[in-house]
Amino acid sequence: MNATDIPEKRWDTLARSRDARLARAGHLASGCIVPADRIVPLLEALIEPGDRVCIEGNNQKQADFLARSLVKTDPSRLRDLHLVQSVLALPEHIDLIERGQVSRIDFSFSGPQAARLARLVESRKIAIGAIHTYLELFARYFVDLTPRVALIAAQAADREGNLYTGPNTEDTPAIVEATTFKGGIVIAQVNQIVDKLPRVDIPADWVDYVVQAPTPHYIEPLFTRDPAQITEIQVLMGMIAIKGLYAEYGIKRLNHGIGFDTAAIELLLPTYAADLGLKGKICTHWALNPHPTLIPAIEAGFVESVHSFGSEVGMERYTAARPDIFFTGADGSMRSNRAFCQAAGHYACDLFIGSTLQIDLQGNSSTATKGRIAGFGGAPNMGADARGRRHASPAWLRAGREGRGDIAMPRGQKLVVQIVETFREHMEPAFVERLDAWDLAATANMDLPPVMIYGEDLTHIITEEGIANLLLCRTPQEREQAIRGVAGYTPVGMVRDTRMVENLRDRGIIRRPEDMGIRKSDATRDLLAARSVKDLVHASGGLYDPPRQFRNW
Amino acid sequence: MNATDIPEKRWDTLARSRDARLARAGHLASGCIVPADRIVPLLEALIEPGDRVCIEGNNQKQADFLARSLVKTDPSRLRDLHLVQSVLALPEHIDLIERGQVSRIDFSFSGPQAARLARLVESRKIAIGAIHTYLELFARYFVDLTPRVALIAAQAADREGNLYTGPNTEDTPAIVEATTFKGGIVIAQVNQIVDKLPRVDIPADWVDYVVQAPTPHYIEPLFTRDPAQITEIQVLMGMIAIKGLYAEYGIKRLNHGIGFDTAAIELLLPTYAADLGLKGKICTHWALNPHPTLIPAIEAGFVESVHSFGSEVGMERYTAARPDIFFTGADGSMRSNRAFCQAAGHYACDLFIGSTLQIDLQGNSSTATKGRIAGFGGAPNMGADARGRRHASPAWLRAGREGRGDIAMPRGQKLVVQIVETFREHMEPAFVERLDAWDLAATANMDLPPVMIYGEDLTHIITEEGIANLLLCRTPQEREQAIRGVAGYTPVGMVRDTRMVENLRDRGIIRRPEDMGIRKSDATRDLLAARSVKDLVHASGGLYDPPRQFRNW
Repeated sequence: MNATDIPEKRWDTLARSRDARLARAGHLASGCIVPADRIVPLLEALIEPGDRVCIEGNNQKQADFLARSLVKTDPSRLRDLHLVQSVLALPEHIDLIERGQVSRIDFSFSGPQAARLARLVESRKIAIGAIHTYLELFARYFVDLTPRVALIAAQAADREGNLYTGPNTEDTPAIVEATTFKGGIVIAQVNQIVDKLPRVDIPADWVDYVVQAPTPHYIEPLFTRDPAQITEIQVLMGMIAIKGLYAEYGIKRLNHGIGFDTAAIELLLPTYAADLGLKGKICTHWALNPHPTLIPAIEAGFVESVHSFGSEVGMERYTAARPDIFFTGADGSMRSNRAFCQAAGHYACDLFIGSTLQIDLQGNSSTATKGRIAGFGGAPNMGADARGRRHASPAWLRAGREGRGDIAMPRGQKLVVQIVETFREHMEPAFVERLDAWDLAATANMDLPPVMIYGEDLTHIITEEGIANLLLCRTPQEREQAIRGVAGYTPVGMVRDTRMVENLRDRGIIRRPEDMGIRKSDATRDLLAARSVKDLVHASGGLYDPPRQFRNW
Repeated sequence: MNATDIPEKRWDTLARSRDARLARAGHLASGCIVPADRIVPLLEALIEPGDRVCIEGNNQKQADFLARSLVKTDPSRLRDLHLVQSVLALPEHIDLIERGQVSRIDFSFSGPQAARLARLVESRKIAIGAIHTYLELFARYFVDLTPRVALIAAQAADREGNLYTGPNTEDTPAIVEATTFKGGIVIAQVNQIVDKLPRVDIPADWVDYVVQAPTPHYIEPLFTRDPAQITEIQVLMGMIAIKGLYAEYGIKRLNHGIGFDTAAIELLLPTYAADLGLKGKICTHWALNPHPTLIPAIEAGFVESVHSFGSEVGMERYTAARPDIFFTGADGSMRSNRAFCQAAGHYACDLFIGSTLQIDLQGNSSTATKGRIAGFGGAPNMGADARGRRHASPAWLRAGREGRGDIAMPRGQKLVVQIVETFREHMEPAFVERLDAWDLAATANMDLPPVMIYGEDLTHIITEEGIANLLLCRTPQEREQAIRGVAGYTPVGMVRDTRMVENLRDRGIIRRPEDMGIRKSDATRDLLAARSVKDLVHASGGLYDPPRQFRNW
């Protein structure tokens, strides 16, 4: 066996194909700069049928001009594309499928397009490779889903093609690195081309073409929650989380999911938590987007460090003015990085807390509903026990002790918490015998029901009825009754075994607000450190600049 | 509650401290370039007592000149440092502790310094924060262990401070990003300063100072295994892995630990596996350093893609000549990236296989031994079920089905395999009643015994006696007997319950070579695609250039 036994093989097919593509496109650009009106022929010159293409977009920044331009290409030339990207959130992403240009997708989240996507799957117009979490999809970029062409978005470029992505750096480094270092092609849309960038986020070496888009790339203010909409039940659940969980375990490093439930917790830190003497003892280090509702806690000195997946519209001046807290460059503006922040959420946080639509009696939870293929973004990565973790912390060690019963080898465990009201909108119960995910799996022909967080990874459930500590349950029956025991007046909660639930309460597996010294009558909106978006602006010293839709003054 | 209630607080202490440090050092540099003979005063000007410092180094590239220079600084000025870095592998790292300059360490691996480190811990000269896996430590860089000063190593710099890290990019992007975007200071040692770099791996914006080291940075050829040393028992175990495991599950995406056991598997792919018709069906996509022993499989067209944590000495020309396989830049040379490759190993691979020193009867394994504090590098990250994973593959789905017994919610599982001879060097048994890790934890005052791979995550054990499939075991007793049943003539293996072991074999939980149609007499070194380093050079068409210590011709 040696090399000469093997027929002659070329080892640079990717590089030669790349050269051929660049040669076809050469006349459309001057250097690396492409005029906006030549972007459609450029894409037609650079992309080939069957290519894996990443159109950058996540739940915030979108390469929307490049997506719109791709929809204008000739469908007889650019076809059978395989999209490999974080989100399918723009109508144009789905248009590409309907036009027959995209035949396969691997992604993480489809949010607003979930219903359209489900219909296309049902009519067999598209094959879904898989639905990932963000870090998992980035990981596959380096193994078996490397993009051939990446269409990315940046704030600005210089004339050499260096890019400034600033606060919304997000997915860009991961996408570009995988593409450019495997002979792929990188095209960036930018809001402006300048002589000198504030800083270089992506070196020009890694970028093939730059186009100034007619309009700035779209950014979704996804992490803004108006404190005015936080209910007193959410205040109560926030108090339970802080006193019954964060203080108990000494949670310093954490990630919050999006929603009013977690926004309430953030707004209770400088008031309720501070009164409990918890400043410096909980919630000091975060893997979190710059949530406006975190401003009062930051101003109160509660927070030491925040690393972010992405940015948040309107928070640019605030984050720039708080470089001790946020990760910012020498130019003064923030740098986010979704890959590193997901790694931080997975490996460096002791707790993840988020909301869901449904929880079953094993503790499996999902936001999947029939007729919608939405995905879970980053939640499964943060909401899973990180079994490769080896460093200890008091919270992690205690969770491990509680959860391991008679297993001989000690180990820590991540705290993974669902916080839900027992009934959500339209009086839909949050607790169910059977997840809708089963039906979705059947109709969409999925290998497994799309579970966001598995019961095995879930450690606590918080509702307005109290906390269920699933770590302490020793049998599936105890676990089921612990869940029923905080499920309130939902059908699942109504048929609890009351004697067993009382027994669980005696053992501290279920804890009611009164067991924790929390008076429900204290749970008023007055406890919130900000009760409106205007309060947040005030708390920021005028640095937070909320988007128009959040202003009513 | 609003901002005016809070005493005036500065939010730019990091930036101001940085400015003060740079001002102190300004006269020592011209632009960003520092002469080598001024590096000691530069470090004294830039580093302050109590700083978190990262001296770049992993199991390959080492910022050795900067480490040596740090040992020359005044210990009355630079003291109480907290090292936060992948390895403590150089004598200088330990010297810093002995000199009283470093009082706390957080790291991943200490390999050659493990014994010295253990003595320092015993004499209370050093506090260990924790021993991490690489990705876990990088994650903490963005949460609670952000370096204040990073001392890194690159191949070359230009006069603006852009860096070329080339094949040995490794940890650099993760370290630099965390440091520079939190107001820290980055100092790079380079082998040469040039007018024009082959490519930019790290932008000048992110680097404060560059010093040309008197000698090129050290690189350890850690992943080179001489095929001449592979035994026939290792050939047999390799055949078992390929036919009994890789083929059974259809393993396409994988990571191999270091060692002769896995090197044997690599060298059997173009021969034994090809004869079984497995080309294109197994081992196509890898998260792996460029192992020289993978050359014959690559040349045989077995391999489609390899992404690497780091490079390997002597493999530079070979990887550059195989850009379809390896991740390479437009300049033609490879780019590695430990953070992304660890993410790939965790989330995008279906199998991890590696060796260990000890396995207990629950399947917990560890390389920790008394008197040595060594750490595990990346193994725990790759050798753990990735519970945040959501994409399916046939191998992952099958492992999940096998492992979940009566759990109602289906889920996939990663294959995590230990491959060991029942006796290792000096006739030490690989199977033990109790891991030495327990003793080490007691003497070194660790929170938990340092387990490399937990029994809960381990799915299979391969020895010369066959495969134990732990997924199929339904009770702790079955698991114990499955392990004893492949433990050979070790004391643990000798006291197996032979009836139960035969029952496990009948159920396919234990499989002997003959059960898989493998004749032990076929397991000869003739099956290896290369039987010497010289064969590897030949297979590479002369592109592989082994380091001197591996040449005997």
